[in-house]
Amino acid sequence: MAVMTMQANLDQTLMALADPTRRAILERLSKGESRVTELARPFAMSLNAVSKHIRMLERANLVRRRCVGREHFLSLNREPLDEAAAWIEAQRAVWTARLDALDALLRAEEAQAKGTRPEGRAASKPTKKKGRTR
Amino acid sequence: MAVMTMQANLDQTLMALADPTRRAILERLSKGESRVTELARPFAMSLNAVSKHIRMLERANLVRRRCVGREHFLSLNREPLDEAAAWIEAQRAVWTARLDALDALLRAEEAQAKGTRPEGRAASKPTKKKGRTR
Repeated sequence: MAVMTMQANLDQTLMALADPTRRAILERLSKGESRVTELARPFAMSLNAVSKHIRMLERANLVRRRCVGREHFLSLNREPLDEAAAWIEAQRAVWTARLDALDALLRAEEAQAKGTRPEGRAASKPTKKKGRTR
Repeated sequence: MAVMTMQANLDQTLMALADPTRRAILERLSKGESRVTELARPFAMSLNAVSKHIRMLERANLVRRRCVGREHFLSLNREPLDEAAAWIEAQRAVWTARLDALDALLRAEEAQAKGTRPEGRAASKPTKKKGRTR
């Protein structure tokens, strides 16, 4: 159940980030809290269109809204971004480990093809083991 | 133009990652190259449905296909993941810097309100070093 919720959160976070306007809104908010109208000004689209993007960011919990009377202030919430970073970093680590392993394998095969032992192997010569029975 | 392309790439990457099945496919491929049919087997959906997810991953350049006769082998390509990680990490760094600055400001205001200097100022006196000249 907890895993399912985290999966759903991650879906929402990544989907919310998968749009240049929404990423620009987050970049703007990283400079500080902002009113909705101020935030919308630099974008070449209607306030309504920007509001829709903001609502999607709020649903993904990346943006929080604070209301003071009729004024709405928006600010960032970093938790979902940390979760997305954690998944991506975990994958990058696994991919890197796998590429390193492949690399080592290729180098070992190359060394064998040349009729030489891969570096460092000489120390663990398997011939010596032959005469030994435990 | 280059920025536009990178934005579009990032959109595609994040969209491709915003689905649990596609993330599971990538996790599976991080263990090594796989045939399409092998890859599809553990998923409770049709081969056609899995193929659609794979095509989306290919469009995002996260997955590469190698054809040997009629066999199709899939493997990972890490570049788009690195790009997504770079954007997220840059944002996290800015957010962290901003939160740290806010924190420092709050502590300074608190200290001023108490009529004392912020903590740590007194302790950093370089008195001990005074007697030593290299």
